[in-house]
Order: sequence, then structure tokens, then C-alpha cells
Amino acid sequence: MRDANQPPMVSTMMAQPLSLNHLLERAGHLFPSSEIVSRLPDKSYRTHRFGQFHDRTRRLAQALLNLGIGRGDRVATLCWNHHAHLECYFGIPAAGAVMHTLNLRLSPEEIGWIAADAQDRVLVVDDILLPLYRQFAHLHRFEHVLVFPFSGAAVPAGEGLTDYEALLAGTDTAGFRYPDHAEDDPVSMCYTSGTTGRPKGVAYSHRSTVLHTLVGCLGDCWGLRGTDTVLPVTPMFHANSWGIPYAAVMLGTKLVFPGPHLHPDDLLDLMQDHPPTLALGVPTIWLGLIQAYEAALSTQPGRWRLPPGMRSLVGGAAVPESLIRAFDRHGVWLLQGWGMTETSPLATVSYPKAELRDIDADERYRRAAMAGVPVPLVDVRLRQDDGNDAPWDGRSVGEIQVRGPFITGSYHRVPVSEDKFTADGWLRTGDVASMDPHGFVRITDRTKDLIKSGGEWISSVDLENALMGHPQVLEAAVIAIPDEKWSERPLACVVSRNGLAIERASLDACLLGQGFAKWQLPERYEFIDAVPRTSTGKFYKLRLRERFPR
Amino acid sequence: MRDANQPPMVSTMMAQPLSLNHLLERAGHLFPSSEIVSRLPDKSYRTHRFGQFHDRTRRLAQALLNLGIGRGDRVATLCWNHHAHLECYFGIPAAGAVMHTLNLRLSPEEIGWIAADAQDRVLVVDDILLPLYRQFAHLHRFEHVLVFPFSGAAVPAGEGLTDYEALLAGTDTAGFRYPDHAEDDPVSMCYTSGTTGRPKGVAYSHRSTVLHTLVGCLGDCWGLRGTDTVLPVTPMFHANSWGIPYAAVMLGTKLVFPGPHLHPDDLLDLMQDHPPTLALGVPTIWLGLIQAYEAALSTQPGRWRLPPGMRSLVGGAAVPESLIRAFDRHGVWLLQGWGMTETSPLATVSYPKAELRDIDADERYRRAAMAGVPVPLVDVRLRQDDGNDAPWDGRSVGEIQVRGPFITGSYHRVPVSEDKFTADGWLRTGDVASMDPHGFVRITDRTKDLIKSGGEWISSVDLENALMGHPQVLEAAVIAIPDEKWSERPLACVVSRNGLAIERASLDACLLGQGFAKWQLPERYEFIDAVPRTSTGKFYKLRLRERFPR
Repeated sequence: MRDANQPPMVSTMMAQPLSLNHLLERAGHLFPSSEIVSRLPDKSYRTHRFGQFHDRTRRLAQALLNLGIGRGDRVATLCWNHHAHLECYFGIPAAGAVMHTLNLRLSPEEIGWIAADAQDRVLVVDDILLPLYRQFAHLHRFEHVLVFPFSGAAVPAGEGLTDYEALLAGTDTAGFRYPDHAEDDPVSMCYTSGTTGRPKGVAYSHRSTVLHTLVGCLGDCWGLRGTDTVLPVTPMFHANSWGIPYAAVMLGTKLVFPGPHLHPDDLLDLMQDHPPTLALGVPTIWLGLIQAYEAALSTQPGRWRLPPGMRSLVGGAAVPESLIRAFDRHGVWLLQGWGMTETSPLATVSYPKAELRDIDADERYRRAAMAGVPVPLVDVRLRQDDGNDAPWDGRSVGEIQVRGPFITGSYHRVPVSEDKFTADGWLRTGDVASMDPHGFVRITDRTKDLIKSGGEWISSVDLENALMGHPQVLEAAVIAIPDEKWSERPLACVVSRNGLAIERASLDACLLGQGFAKWQLPERYEFIDAVPRTSTGKFYKLRLRERFPR
Repeated sequence: MRDANQPPMVSTMMAQPLSLNHLLERAGHLFPSSEIVSRLPDKSYRTHRFGQFHDRTRRLAQALLNLGIGRGDRVATLCWNHHAHLECYFGIPAAGAVMHTLNLRLSPEEIGWIAADAQDRVLVVDDILLPLYRQFAHLHRFEHVLVFPFSGAAVPAGEGLTDYEALLAGTDTAGFRYPDHAEDDPVSMCYTSGTTGRPKGVAYSHRSTVLHTLVGCLGDCWGLRGTDTVLPVTPMFHANSWGIPYAAVMLGTKLVFPGPHLHPDDLLDLMQDHPPTLALGVPTIWLGLIQAYEAALSTQPGRWRLPPGMRSLVGGAAVPESLIRAFDRHGVWLLQGWGMTETSPLATVSYPKAELRDIDADERYRRAAMAGVPVPLVDVRLRQDDGNDAPWDGRSVGEIQVRGPFITGSYHRVPVSEDKFTADGWLRTGDVASMDPHGFVRITDRTKDLIKSGGEWISSVDLENALMGHPQVLEAAVIAIPDEKWSERPLACVVSRNGLAIERASLDACLLGQGFAKWQLPERYEFIDAVPRTSTGKFYKLRLRERFPR
């Protein structure tokens, strides 16, 4: 019987907010000897310990507070991957502010527009990126520009530039105290790559970042531990390098940053000097790397060795099965995740589920090339045009819609609209997918990249992946061209390995051999030098459509 | 420049509450074929799949809603470890209610008092525990008593008992909808074992449980994956079996429940039938198991095999280094965690930190016998009497105080007092410990178990662990006896392997050989048949103090 004299509820847990500051303090106290290795512009290395990182980061926070930066203010970064960028990851939030990572691959006009849209008050910039900064400085005025002397050269006098190192060295942290914050306060901000329309700002909170970090570290996701060595090739301005820097700091994991040296030869050299157990990057990176590696096996045997047992986390674009097989031949497993800026980004991961432990190699590769299974805390549904969800039958498709505590609920300064969020609160990703009975998501296309031929849909992604399994094909991108009879037909833009055209019959046979129907074969093949890419390495099909309007 | 026309903050993440309901839906959809094996009273097995578990759990939730149970109401369980208890773990919260696990090892008077203190409205009880229920039924009136027919016998008519299986079978979930909840709403409740004073209720929330689950699953904590098989020997009424059931449901991990069969022979039989990769229990369980196993190696060779590569999660009391070494000889690693009911319970874990990868075997065992390193989201400090924190020098001691989002902030119906919580919001654990420069916590004693001899402290736990390394000692418990000259002196209560007294000189030599000073040696040794234990398997020193008052 309920006792009316007693409160209905019981005792409560501590109301301790989730906080990046906890991770920073943890790193400083529990892992002071863990290493952060940065490759400098001259290709030498600089190593910091987590103890130094802890001290320098608190100095940065205090310096920002001294500059009058406070809760919710945006502090931009325009940096390669290195230790000072990691200091920004924690030091800017430790001051209560929001780290906004600017994408250095965008045009100066775009960067300037984004900085203005985000209302960035301060910029932290690598000295070797000052020429880029000067190209957009007229578009947005930062109150302070802190220059990290990455190259080791003196920071230029004038221009209102502040030396990052001098600022840290001159800052006293004796009285430093983390400003109070709510766990929903923003800590970082990233703009979408904008394959459709203007880039849009997404802000991550203490809460969403800590939750995403915990989920990502799980054994069935990244499987990260303190004894790992992580090489984030993925830029730190690309969805926070997929959140890996936070994870490494939480667990005391050694970090190896490549700086500006992303050429396959440089990455392979780096892997000899600091062998990673986990490396992450977009498929383009791994495609270039395996080509360089395999070529060197015959021309320069012994020059490089892929770290034994290394795992590679791949995402940001579809991963061809042929790439997974190629790496596996050399003992490296490609672990595919799917997500987007709006999802922090990890939403699904392709991992060996318990009930699939006995599948054969072909099936294992096939599944590894899928987007994978929703991670904990993320709800996924495939919404069809009729408002119903597609069944998990491996065939039916629908738009992927996602919901969870590290999925964005809005965009910066953009009214929440129904083309981005459903009335019941799910994010519309614009990606089209099927799910099979095991819960594996297979992305078939971006909504706008599906090809409607004679009332049936053809997946451009499926065609691309199949074509990239052809021995002479380096890359392939498929777009729709208008067709009077069929409405749309596929056009395949192919980059061949030797630069020469490939026989149409050979390409068709490759597709037919992989189960495509005759009507699904490309209407035409065009041989191009390279597939145009967006700033984050994705196929930029808009450019191909402009080049091949019909 | 801040633009006064724009809001200072940015976009926000979805306000999606952390929820056990998400984990339940995830289990039903992503892992329908994962197994839950329960050992029945007749020692046969029953296997459920996660798909059935999902269905049955929602039926339980709907049935409770039909009974008028709602938000914050307490529903008690008096059950062994089995699938129906797991259904309560998720089904009771799915109805918005709070699962309160009653400890079947307590006296009927204590159980009745606790049920009344918690104001439990409903009880779910195993039929084989009905005799126990009848002993405390007069102390608290439940509105409904649901009897799980664990033995397979018909549920007795009369007494107002409801058949759990009939209730589930007769419940329609076609219209089931999870009631809305806040993430701070309580989901479960557990009473402290009450070694000091009355047991006190601690309630866990959706939020604290999900966070604890994510942290526990990390590679450097339990390292749980979907391909594991987990054997929770730890009772599900003992701090929610340390939270492992939630973790297994989140990841789709096979669960093996021992039912009431906790005898070492039964556990070893179970391990042959369903080999676990991770088993968890208090040290007493593993002590009995290794004795039975090693004895059988000569008397019944081939009868049992410890599952190769199995890890054992041990906690709830100090783990002697000799036990860790004994299991390691047979290929089983004991992973020690420390915590308490108030900490959900995982607060520290002893794992191989990166900077210690090259330590020798002795040092590895020594560290494995420590409480370990604070887990993510938990802050630990060692507060000394003067209000300062003990330095991490491996020698200085202080009371362990903890803080974090899965640490309780209060007790049920007990005013928050300074002997339990500090003014700045930390939980006072009552355990005394040192920490070394690597962040390893070593529990030296309960505050009240320290022995003050001549102005110096002697750790009873250190003496016990050292004595248990003596080949003829099975168990040892050390208490303080009053002493006119020294104020207190240690008395060692020893259980010998063959039941006979051991030479004092041999025991002293064992302690001196492990670095104890002469003044730290026990004043006296008493040989006893067994160390009395609390309901959760801890040494019950109160009973020894009553028996040996001087």
C-alpha cells in the first residue's frame, strides 16, 4: 500500500555533470607518462607526455579566460593534426568556450563565411597556414589570432598576431579553476561538408561528447584500450577526427599525429617510426596507401612493413570490398563505421556479431563492406515514402533516420525544418539503405544519388563498388543521366589503373558476374583522370554531373 | 566581436534521455538469437533467446501496468540468478517502476524490515523461496505476490499468490508503450549489506545504470563483447550482479545463470556445459572453486577443465595474491574491481596500464591484488584527518572518497549526514587506502578495522592477505583486541587447511618474510573452523569481536 506520508520516489544518484574537464584531469593524474607524438613540418617528431599536455591545456584555458573568452564563445582552429590542436580540444572547453574546427581544405571564401556564421571570436592557426588565413581575413574579424609556431619559425610581428607558445609560457595557472558548466553546454562545433547547399554548423556538448567517447571505445566499436597506439589520419577538423582524440585522452592511449604529411609514402614512413595499432582515415587514404605499399613490395622490398595486427577504422565514404580484401592480405583489418557530422559521427559499425562467428571468408568480407550495426544509444529506422519503416529483410530500402543523445537536434542559426528533422524528432540523414535480419545497414545511396530507371531504382554506390573490384579499375563514380525512355540511366565515370580506356565488354562482364541485371548496366562508360572530391574526401558528384549533363 | 543580435549559444544535441528501455529494444531487435541459459532447481537447463526475453519482459511491464503499478513504485524480487530475474531487471523499469532486489541470505526479520523500509508494493519470488517469504510475510504486506514457478511445480493456490508464468501468458502487449520517463528516474534499488548499522537503500537511475554499463564494458574494465559468454555467480541482489546483466543485454552477450547451485562442484560442472569467457564472483567463491578443482586433478583427473582463457571478475572483498597466482597457474586471470553498493558498484579496476607493460610477473601479481585504478567518470581522493588529500606515494593513507554520476548522493529515507557525505559533495566510503604514482588504489582497511597499536596503525587486511599466503592457512581474519600498554593489538583468527593448529613460529616467519615488523605481528593466533561471513560473503568481523572480546 502506498504510504501517503512518504515521498513516492527514492534516493538519488549524484547530479555530477558529464564533462571533458573530468577526462582532462584524469589524463593528467592517471596517465602522465603517456605519449603524444606530432610530426612537424620538417618531418621530424616532437613528443609530449600527457603530463605536459595537461599543464599546457590548462594554461591555454587560463589564457583564454584572461582574454575575456567565456561560456559559449566560439574559438576557431585552423590546424593540422598535432598536439597543439589536441590542447585546443580540451583547453577551449576548459575555459567554457566552444572549439570550432575550420576545414582548411575549403576555399578561403567558404572558410570566411563559416567563421562569420559561427561568430568566432578567436582563431588558433598553424603558422604554415597563415597564407590561407590571410586569404579570408577580410571576411571575418577575429578579436585575437593565436599563431602556433608549428614550423619553429618566429611568429610574424604585426598583423595583430599572438604567439601561442609565448602566451602559454606567460600564463600562470596557480589560481586556475574550471568555470562551472552544465553538461549540455557546447564544447565543439563542426560544419557539415555541404555536398548539398551551404555548410551548416553542428555543436557537440560535454554530454554528447562523453557519451560518444564511451560508446566508441566499446570492444564491439573501436575496441580502444590504454595499450593501443592511435594514428588519426582523419583530420581533426573532420567531425573531431571521429572523436578518437577524446577517447585516447580518456584511456591514456598513445597518440601519433601526422601533421601535414598525408602522402602515402609519408604515412608508411610514420608507421615504421611509431607503429599504430589503430589508424583511421577515409577510404581514399587507404586506397593510396595500399597502392604505394604494394608497388614498393617489388620495387623497394623491405622499405615498409604494415604494423602487424593493425586495425584501420574507415569511414566518411563507402568502403569497397576489394579494399578490405587487399588490406587483409597484408594482415590489416579495415573496420568500417558509418556516420556523419550530425551524428558525432559514429552511428553504425561493422563488427563480427556473435551469431555470425561461423560465416565463411566471403561473407565476412561482404559484411565488412556494409555500414554495420547501430551502436548503443543510437536508434536507427529506415523510413519509406509511405511513412512506414522498411522491414529488415536485406532488400527493402528507406531513408536512414537516427535518434540519440549524440545526434544533433538542430543546426546553428538554421530554423529546424521538416526536410532535416521529422515531426517526431528524428534526424533525416538523406542516405538510403536496407537492413538485414542481423541488423546490418547497407547504404545504397544518397537520396539524390539514386538512379530511377524505368520505375526501378538503381544504386550508384552498388555499381561503383562492383566496378572497383575490376582489376584494371582504380576508381569509379556513377551518376544519373536523363533518358527519354527510362527517365534516368546510369553513367559510369571510370579511372583506370594505367590511364587507358577499358573494354566495355570487360566492365559489363565484371558487373554481370556480381549479380547485376542487364538493365542495371551503365548506359555508358566515360574514362576520366580522377574522381573530383569534396574537402573531406567524398566523391563530388555535382562536378561530374556538370561535366556530363547527358 | 560578439553580435548582440544573435544568441550566444549554438545548436544543441537531441535531448534523448538515457534509458534501459533503449537497451531492451536494442536486445530484441539486434540480438534476437543470443542465449540466456538458466540452471533450474533440478540442475537441468532452460535456454531462452533474447527475442523471447524481449517479448516476456514487455509482457511483465504491461502486466505491472495493468496491476496499477507506475512511476517510482517499488517492485521487489526475491530470486536466484535466472532468466526471470533478468526479466525483472528490465520489465519493472519498463513499467516506470523500481526493481528492489531483496537479499535472500539475510534473516527473515531483516528482509521484512527492508521490504517495509522500501515500501515495496509487489513481490516477485521464486517458488523454492516461498518458505523464506512466509517467514517475513507478516512484517510487510505486498499488494501482489508473483510466484515464478522456477521448480516447475504448480504455484500453490490460496495465500493470494499469482502465477508469474500465467500472468505473462495472459497479458497482451499489442498496445504496449513505454511510459515516458526522465533519465534520473530510479530503475532499481539495493540495500547496503549493513556491516555497520541498519542496511540503507540506494536507488540507481536510468542514467546512472546506462553510464555504469558503458564504463564497465570498456576494454580496460570488464572488456565485454558480444562474443563473450558471461557467468554471473555474483547474486543478482548484490549490487545488481555488479551491473553485468545490463551490459550483456546491451551487447547481445550470452548469459549463463547458475540458479541456486553455487557449490564449487556445481559451478565446475556448469563451466563444462556452458564454458564462460567471463565469470564473476566474490573471492570466497573462487577460493572454494580452486580448492575443489585442484583436489580433483589428482582424485578425479579429467572430470573438469577450467575454460581456457577465461577471465574472472572478482570483487566484494580483498583478493589475496595467492588466489590470483593459483588461478593463473591454470590459465585463468582474476580481474579485481573495487566498489560498493553506493558506487553502482564499479569504482576502480586493476588492469595492465600501458606504462607497466614491461613489469615482471611478481609485480604483475602484486598489482592484480590491488583495488586498481579509478574508472572513467569516477573521481577518487584519499582524504586525511587534517582535511588534506594523501599524496599518491604508495604509502600515505586516507579515507577513500568518491564522486561521479553513478555514485549515490543520498540514502533512501535517511537524511544526508556528514558522516556519509562531505560538505563538498563526495561520498565517504569508510575504506582506508593508499594510492601509488600509477594511480593504483590499495585498500588497507575499513576505517573501523584498522588496529591502532602504540600510536601506529596496523592494517588487518595486509596481515590477512599475508597469512593467506602461508601454505597451511586456508583463511585468516584479523581483529583488534584491547591492550593496556599499546591501546590495541592484532589478534589473528586462522582457519588451517587440515583443521589443526599451526606453529606460531611458522606463521610469524611467514609474516616477517613478507616485510612485516616485529611489532606488527599478531599478539595471538586463534584457530577457528571458519570465518563468519555476511550475507554477501564478506568477513563478518563483528562476530569475531564478540567471540574474542580480548
